[in-house]
Order: sequence, then structure tokens, then C-alpha cells
Amino acid sequence: MPHQNRGNLFILSAPSGAGKSSLIKALLERQDKVRVSVSHTTRAPRPGENNGEHYHFVSVDEFKTLINQNDFFEWAQVFDNYYGTSKQAIEAQLAAGIDVFLDIDWQGARQVRELMPEVKTIFILPPSKQALEERLNSRGQDSQEVIASRMEQAKSECSHYNEFDYLLVNDDFATALNELEHIVVAARLELKKQQLSQHALIAELLK
Amino acid sequence: MPHQNRGNLFILSAPSGAGKSSLIKALLERQDKVRVSVSHTTRAPRPGENNGEHYHFVSVDEFKTLINQNDFFEWAQVFDNYYGTSKQAIEAQLAAGIDVFLDIDWQGARQVRELMPEVKTIFILPPSKQALEERLNSRGQDSQEVIASRMEQAKSECSHYNEFDYLLVNDDFATALNELEHIVVAARLELKKQQLSQHALIAELLK
Repeated sequence: MPHQNRGNLFILSAPSGAGKSSLIKALLERQDKVRVSVSHTTRAPRPGENNGEHYHFVSVDEFKTLINQNDFFEWAQVFDNYYGTSKQAIEAQLAAGIDVFLDIDWQGARQVRELMPEVKTIFILPPSKQALEERLNSRGQDSQEVIASRMEQAKSECSHYNEFDYLLVNDDFATALNELEHIVVAARLELKKQQLSQHALIAELLK
Repeated sequence: MPHQNRGNLFILSAPSGAGKSSLIKALLERQDKVRVSVSHTTRAPRPGENNGEHYHFVSVDEFKTLINQNDFFEWAQVFDNYYGTSKQAIEAQLAAGIDVFLDIDWQGARQVRELMPEVKTIFILPPSKQALEERLNSRGQDSQEVIASRMEQAKSECSHYNEFDYLLVNDDFATALNELEHIVVAARLELKKQQLSQHALIAELLK
């Protein structure tokens, strides 16, 4: 279908504790034609995690085969585990007019941007350092050392905020969700998208 | 104030009959920090038009002085009348964090884009040729010839749709208004804007 609208690819990045997962979840509930990409990983499933829903769980050998077949948009090794985003699954959804969100960090974002410069990238900031610290210690049971290490990690992630196209502050959740939705809807109205979806109308008006 | 957010400059273009004026009017009612630029013109005020509200009405000599002073973003002569957009008024509003809409045609859009490449440009299409014809003959009293000439003019304007960043179709008014609003809000979330408005937060998080 040559005039089918193509979905947009988004990257949503944030330090842990900024509320990224909740925002994506809420967005999916409100927007029909939005999906989040399911990554491949070699780590073991945790209780409650389903294959194909939370991750595609594969062996290290399978993962390495996918790497060699050039099947990943981006992949990374984190300690002993591999994580990656399959090109094929994403391409199929984009081609069907579905917007796809990648939930990856700044390093993954760089890899995807190389391959697909039209990707739209969004970074979420927590509303303050204190709020971040509270969220990173939500159970209130962690040692000062553990919290300090998480804060260092969050700061390091935040330091890449300026590589992204959009910046959201997750202070009030409803506001941040609303803003995220505005970015998604506005992206569908860009000339290149509308030229396809409004092809028949444009042809009629210029006839 | 170095960290004051700066407003965005938008251009809204459309063939007559696409409903541009109603859309801008409704947007201004819904969005506090949006204004439409008031143009300068040498034509005489029509009944009900107020100086400074609908236009800045000036003499041809005054207009030519403004041209020579390089005071216009864009200007055009239409038959015997001059129309222009003053830089000064727009700059003051942008600096105060207000989004400014220019209601100009594709030729004006080209001039502004030269001077301010970051301008965001939006083109509005009518939902069909028939709807356009009905809107251009709303009083039902015009000759075939007059309508045909207006349709030619509209088609010529439409032929430049692909010089714009965004494309809206004004089929259902509420939908088109909502889409316009999404573009305006999303533009405020772009990195360059947020870097200014969230300057203090970013500094705190990276400290």
C-alpha cells in the first residue's frame, strides 16, 4: 500500500526514578496506534515476566546469531546479559502505521539515530534531585551507599539530556503524560506523514 | 532575563475558504500565551476594522519608510496596497515568551523562513474541492466566473503546501483546532526551549 501512513519511531529515555515506564504504560492506554518495542534479552525471566510480552527471552547463542545477521537496531551488553532491539518487529509495526516507542538509554539512542535519523527522541527529567532520591529509595530500606550509587547513575544518564529532541519534566504525572501525547500527535501532522495519509485529497485539490 | 523562555514563531497559511481565520481565533481563545501578529497595511480600513487590532493602518509614505528602515520581516504589494509584518512587534512578543502566529501566504512564508529558519510553518487544506467551492461561494450570489477565479487562486496557493512543516486538514473544525494546539504545545517541549525554561532544574540535577 504505497499511500499508507507510516508510523513514527520514538525513543524515550530517562534516569531510573523519572517515571518513564508509568508514562509509556499510560500513553499506550490512551493512544490506539502506539506500541512499545519488546526487546530481546539473554537474562532469565523474573517472576511475572512473559516471553514476547516483557521481553523476547533468548539464549546467548541465539542473541549472537541475531547480532551476526545484523538483526538489531541497537544492542548492548550489561554485565553478563545482552539486550537488543530487533529491526524486523519494529519495521513491521511502522509499516502498518503504528508509532513505536523504544525504551532505551542514551547509548542505544545514539545507535538508533545513526541508522534512522528521523527517529524522534524524548528525554524525561525528574522534577528535582530530592524527588529523584525519594523515588530511588521508595522502599526506604536501602543503604546510603546503594542510594548514592543509583544517584550517580541517574546523574550520568541525565548528563546526556541534550542529545534528545524533546525534554519533559515529570513533576505532575498527568501534565507529563499530556505533553508526551502532544509530541506524538504533532509528529503525525508533519508534512512527510500527511503527504502520504492525505495523498488523495492533495491530488484532488491540485487537479 | 537570560533564562526566560522564548516564544515560537509560527506561520499559518491556507487558501481562502480553508477556515484559517476561525482556527486562529479559536486557538487564541484557548491558549493564553499565543498572539497573532497585526500586520501593517496601506489599504483603507473597512467598516468595523480598528487600527492596531486588525491592522496597523499607515500611509504609503510611512510604509515605504518602514521598508527602507528594514523594519519588515516580509512585505508584499497586492494590487495598489502594501502589506507587511513588523519585526519589532514580533520580537518583543517572542522575547516575552509568547508564541506569535503570522497569517501570511506562501510568498511571505518564504521571506520569513529566510530570516528566521526556526519558524514553524503550518498549511491548512480544505477537506475537498467541493467543500472549498461551497465555502468560496458561501453567499450563493457569486457568478460562475468569480467562483472559478477564486478556485484558481486557491489551487495556486495549495500548490505550495509542500513548503510547510505541518499539514492540517480542516474537515471537522474541533479536530483541526485540536491538532493545531498539539503542534503549538509540542513546539514548547523542544530541547532548545526547555533548556531555557528548565535551566535551574538541569543545573541542580547535574550538580
